Amino acid sequence: MAQIKDLLGNDTVIRPDGRKIDELRPVSITRHFTDAPEGSVLICCGNTRVMCTATFTAGVPRWRRDSGLGWVTAEYAMLPRATSERTARESIKGKVGGRTQEISRLVGRVLRGVCDLKALGENQIQIDCDVLQADGGTRTASVTGAYVALVDALRWAQGHKHIKSADRVLKDRVSAVSVGIINGTPMLDLPYIEDSQAMTDMNVAMTGSGDFIEIQGTAEHRPFTRDELGVLLDLAAKGNTELQAKQGEALSEK
Amino acid sequence: MAQIKDLLGNDTVIRPDGRKIDELRPVSITRHFTDAPEGSVLICCGNTRVMCTATFTAGVPRWRRDSGLGWVTAEYAMLPRATSERTARESIKGKVGGRTQEISRLVGRVLRGVCDLKALGENQIQIDCDVLQADGGTRTASVTGAYVALVDALRWAQGHKHIKSADRVLKDRVSAVSVGIINGTPMLDLPYIEDSQAMTDMNVAMTGSGDFIEIQGTAEHRPFTRDELGVLLDLAAKGNTELQAKQGEALSEK
Amino acid sequence: MAQIKDLLGNDTVIRPDGRKIDELRPVSITRHFTDAPEGSVLICCGNTRVMCTATFTAGVPRWRRDSGLGWVTAEYAMLPRATSERTARESIKGKVGGRTQEISRLVGRVLRGVCDLKALGENQIQIDCDVLQADGGTRTASVTGAYVALVDALRWAQGHKHIKSADRVLKDRVSAVSVGIINGTPMLDLPYIEDSQAMTDMNVAMTGSGDFIEIQGTAEHRPFTRDELGVLLDLAAKGNTELQAKQGEALSEK
Amino acid sequence: MAQIKDLLGNDTVIRPDGRKIDELRPVSITRHFTDAPEGSVLICCGNTRVMCTATFTAGVPRWRRDSGLGWVTAEYAMLPRATSERTARESIKGKVGGRTQEISRLVGRVLRGVCDLKALGENQIQIDCDVLQADGGTRTASVTGAYVALVDALRWAQGHKHIKSADRVLKDRVSAVSVGIINGTPMLDLPYIEDSQAMTDMNVAMTGSGDFIEIQGTAEHRPFTRDELGVLLDLAAKGNTELQAKQGEALSEK
Amino acid sequence: MAQIKDLLGNDTVIRPDGRKIDELRPVSITRHFTDAPEGSVLICCGNTRVMCTATFTAGVPRWRRDSGLGWVTAEYAMLPRATSERTARESIKGKVGGRTQEISRLVGRVLRGVCDLKALGENQIQIDCDVLQADGGTRTASVTGAYVALVDALRWAQGHKHIKSADRVLKDRVSAVSVGIINGTPMLDLPYIEDSQAMTDMNVAMTGSGDFIEIQGTAEHRPFTRDELGVLLDLAAKGNTELQAKQGEALSEK
Amino acid sequence: MAQIKDLLGNDTVIRPDGRKIDELRPVSITRHFTDAPEGSVLICCGNTRVMCTATFTAGVPRWRRDSGLGWVTAEYAMLPRATSERTARESIKGKVGGRTQEISRLVGRVLRGVCDLKALGENQIQIDCDVLQADGGTRTASVTGAYVALVDALRWAQGHKHIKSADRVLKDRVSAVSVGIINGTPMLDLPYIEDSQAMTDMNVAMTGSGDFIEIQGTAEHRPFTRDELGVLLDLAAKGNTELQAKQGEALSEK
Repeated sequence: MAQIKDLLGNDTVIRPDGRKIDELRPVSITRHFTDAPEGSVLICCGNTRVMCTATFTAGVPRWRRDSGLGWVTAEYAMLPRATSERTARESIKGKVGGRTQEISRLVGRVLRGVCDLKALGENQIQIDCDVLQADGGTRTASVTGAYVALVDALRWAQGHKHIKSADRVLKDRVSAVSVGIINGTPMLDLPYIEDSQAMTDMNVAMTGSGDFIEIQGTAEHRPFTRDELGVLLDLAAKGNTELQAKQGEALSEK
Repeated sequence: MAQIKDLLGNDTVIRPDGRKIDELRPVSITRHFTDAPEGSVLICCGNTRVMCTATFTAGVPRWRRDSGLGWVTAEYAMLPRATSERTARESIKGKVGGRTQEISRLVGRVLRGVCDLKALGENQIQIDCDVLQADGGTRTASVTGAYVALVDALRWAQGHKHIKSADRVLKDRVSAVSVGIINGTPMLDLPYIEDSQAMTDMNVAMTGSGDFIEIQGTAEHRPFTRDELGVLLDLAAKGNTELQAKQGEALSEK
Repeated sequence: MAQIKDLLGNDTVIRPDGRKIDELRPVSITRHFTDAPEGSVLICCGNTRVMCTATFTAGVPRWRRDSGLGWVTAEYAMLPRATSERTARESIKGKVGGRTQEISRLVGRVLRGVCDLKALGENQIQIDCDVLQADGGTRTASVTGAYVALVDALRWAQGHKHIKSADRVLKDRVSAVSVGIINGTPMLDLPYIEDSQAMTDMNVAMTGSGDFIEIQGTAEHRPFTRDELGVLLDLAAKGNTELQAKQGEALSEK
Repeated sequence: MAQIKDLLGNDTVIRPDGRKIDELRPVSITRHFTDAPEGSVLICCGNTRVMCTATFTAGVPRWRRDSGLGWVTAEYAMLPRATSERTARESIKGKVGGRTQEISRLVGRVLRGVCDLKALGENQIQIDCDVLQADGGTRTASVTGAYVALVDALRWAQGHKHIKSADRVLKDRVSAVSVGIINGTPMLDLPYIEDSQAMTDMNVAMTGSGDFIEIQGTAEHRPFTRDELGVLLDLAAKGNTELQAKQGEALSEK
Repeated sequence: MAQIKDLLGNDTVIRPDGRKIDELRPVSITRHFTDAPEGSVLICCGNTRVMCTATFTAGVPRWRRDSGLGWVTAEYAMLPRATSERTARESIKGKVGGRTQEISRLVGRVLRGVCDLKALGENQIQIDCDVLQADGGTRTASVTGAYVALVDALRWAQGHKHIKSADRVLKDRVSAVSVGIINGTPMLDLPYIEDSQAMTDMNVAMTGSGDFIEIQGTAEHRPFTRDELGVLLDLAAKGNTELQAKQGEALSEK
Repeated sequence: MAQIKDLLGNDTVIRPDGRKIDELRPVSITRHFTDAPEGSVLICCGNTRVMCTATFTAGVPRWRRDSGLGWVTAEYAMLPRATSERTARESIKGKVGGRTQEISRLVGRVLRGVCDLKALGENQIQIDCDVLQADGGTRTASVTGAYVALVDALRWAQGHKHIKSADRVLKDRVSAVSVGIINGTPMLDLPYIEDSQAMTDMNVAMTGSGDFIEIQGTAEHRPFTRDELGVLLDLAAKGNTELQAKQGEALSEK
């Protein structure tokens, strides 16, 4: 593994999987992963694999009716053996945990951030992100994959004359990536083993034009300085730019 | 589509997908579908796709302790867009529906039917069957796939010295298939479109030696005669024999 | 206790309660057990006692409206001290267990199997089966008693001009009985002590014309052969014929 | 129906069922109604019928351990068709309603009021009151019937050497009855039709020595004066004395 | 602390806080405690502090529509650290306990007891009583405070022309207070330390005209005689008269 | 209202309450608001009022035992009429909403970010933040108030010899404030009326040393640029510095 300088000018830490500190894990995006949904995507970011489906429904929930506006919402969940130890099903427990709700709300909010809900008309898109395998970054992979499923669902809706134009609904592209500080070094795209050691952990959703839709940084283990924040955002910008290139490739396939 | 005689001697009905009445849909069984679980299988029966994982845990639930016996149990669930219309998540609804519980119990019972729980020792195997795409026969595909995941988990446990011998736990092989009567004609392996028209619907779990572990026949739309039952069981025996050959092939791969 | 030959030609096993292997427990069916319901039946099968009520309601649930069809559904439950050890209430636990749901669904399905839902019109019949005392065979006693309550509710509805004719709704009579294999011997109508030792346990719902509406056979402890299945069905046919005679007697009383 | 003077000196109101204002409905108390419970009683007060069982368990709940004291608790429920319109099951709704909890707590409290929990030792008695048919006064019938079931369970426990003496646990006898004011006239033991018109409704649990364990009077429709309270308590005392005579008769049968 | 005679003529017991046996704790009633609700009151009875809000909503729940009648209802809850040991939140537990439901129902019933629901028209008032600090008597403080919040909400509704006249809705004033017997001595207004030792505990809601809306007396630890009941009611009458004077003062402030 | 330049050099927008864009609402922090908790604080930020209590318990939850580490956790809730329209109680709904869980997790995480959990030893501090009145910024007010309650609980624990030193547990001070962009103008400390119009909304938790523990920025309505982020963080730093001065004043009172 070659020595390189990281963004702060330090000699590079050797990451467990041999990546550079500003390097994404291998990404693949498979469209039409299943047949039934209007959009169905399998996204793999390293060993993290998330199935993202987008369901288009004509009409909106009751509280939204007669507003002239559409609605985009999301639900996130993990299969029991996505993790190395089995996690009990939330259906069996009879309630949805805080982490699950937090991520579901995040994914919905970020996608709404790039949608013109007026152009969507009174129609609803429900995103489902189900984690088949979890190795860190499941929420950011969910956002990145869900965007592609959303585009497919909008194209389907345009093809079926439910909406005039998918492009008019989509104000911009969006993806998300995690960054964090491990032993003092900011890094891009943390797998589980790194994430569990991070002093600071940040998820950044960025549009195609390079602006932010969501920044969630948390430093339970050591506060971060404004300079560190700057480096983290640089890493996130680099990662998101690459992820959006992957989204573009996937979406240009027939 | 050629004309053939069915088991009752009638001219063959043309099935929507061109199969003969005693013909299975294409089956594929992929082992090691994900990395974390001790057993992880993707089974595809036509368009039905189920991810079956087997989790091996040393120790048994409290009510089973000091019995000298192990435990095998299962949970079944459908992803929201496994179906053509989105189904609300049971975790969000806060309770597990009757159909889900019924199938979960069935899968566990059938697998226990071929396991020597004494040879398993005080260890537990938890099966999770998550339907990625549903086109009829999800419960029987779950049984068939879960058996393969179970074998892998037992082999893993043998390799890690948790049990002496996987083979001693496994008393026999098991698979399951659906049969039904449609417009008076008994047929094997019903996809959704046939299942929804069936007068009688039956799920049959059979061991490698040709005996039954479970027969569930229901005739909400027209009672079935004892003769019809005979034909249905013949079809099920044929289907299960073929499914077990597929299981054998998959399990003999390295 | 006399020696007799069983259906397989073996010398008869002595059953704990002195019955022959093809003999039902004493059955009594009391109509008008309580006053409020349109049908109210207490059925006793040996020590098993189930109160079955049938509630007739004009109109159907929302999902069934404008179909021109009626609906028949059922709910099953056990009182806490129906069993020798007290069972916690499902209302207190806040959720309905898998066994309860499974049986509720079974009872509803079987009754619908003999009803012409078109002749019922857009009306609903809700069956409630509450087990006052449990000694095996509660689900089959529920079916057998519920049928009588259903008939009373339909007669009431005819008398009150909600439906044209109870007889046109009822396509056939139905009852259910359990059979099982104990120490290799197939037997009819298992009390709890036998049920808990059964290698194979089967519930058979049969119409007055001798056809099947539901067969549920499970062999968690030892698979059963096709020949054994044949004997079990013979026993079930004999038992159901006798139960239907009892239903007939009860229904012919004024 | 003869004219009599009521306790306030008015000419007697004619009650729908022909009773005098200070007259109980017919009462019957059947012990050993079912076989499994340590105490099992069917109490009928007019058309109200409640099955009361008492479960004796050696040991107490965790929070009570090492206190040297026993525990007596109760759960009340109504079967769906106890009422003229079907009531949805609380198990299906997934939560226990306020009325159910209120009555459960009342029954437990009243029974504990006559028990020496020290003499009971670290043992628990769980009372279950299930209303088979409801026609007013179900909570007071529950108390009156539950007392008899409690005595049977204590006698059983004495017979099985779990406790030294049933009589030492029982400090006194207890029963309960409802009284109310209808159109200005205080009356004893209200059936549903009267209860629903009552301006004031009161439930009174009284010991054998004539003292009170519980008085619950509520006047949602018209406040009551202190004089009216006096008359209501006189009626309740008369009713409870008669109910305790019935309890005594039942308990003196072998 | 001076020696005085109590109502039964005994020498006075010395109460932990130095009060006489027929003396209320210091009471304060603060209106407009928060800004958003139509009625918002903080009531302090000794160390017990309850925030009572009244929400006026035009329209009634569905089951009440087209009746021409309004509805008044209440919900009671305790903040987790209202008590000396932290109590788990009922929202987290996912169900509302029996005590909470019992008190919520009591408060609603008592307030309805002084309201002319016809004069209220088809409008609803929802009372919320949240206990900030608990030192006994939280349910009676809730009633007393809620009445003041109710009056403010009705005045608001009159000011906003939702109802014609607040005074016509209010048939009478109402307050509530606890009384109990401790070591044989009846006492007024029990703080927690006394309440936990009481043999008999009684809550009495009384109107301005001195009649009763609710009497709940319970004697889990020693039955009470009719004479004791009389003394308890005298104490409660004295306490309620004083509480109603406090309510009057608060309501006469601008 | 005077004209001033904002941080971007624009002429100042006139805020509904007359504040400058970089001006906090009036803040008050009342310690010892109630008596029972180890720490009890009422914080008012403008019209937002939150009661924050801190409960110290010796010992930690089971999953934390024998780790040598303590635990700090938080629960947030709103009283029903904290808002201008009544919000249904989550206890009644039987589940805790996503927003509530998200904020509860945030508050706990931020406080843990300034605590040395080793110095706390195996002890737990539970924070409860109950919103009495909501006018924007309830989550940040909760953090700011909870910190003061936490300090009081730690001082209490030191006084009672549960921990050696409160100061050693507290690694730094922490507060939080909201910032947002309204009509293109970044502003500090948004009340509800501004929050509901914000294009971007950000909550920033900052330590006494000026580092970040949590940044949550979301731009559902218009993405924000990196420059805008810079201005928002400047505003947040100013606000947090002032809030920490208020915390200091409150904590220096005896």
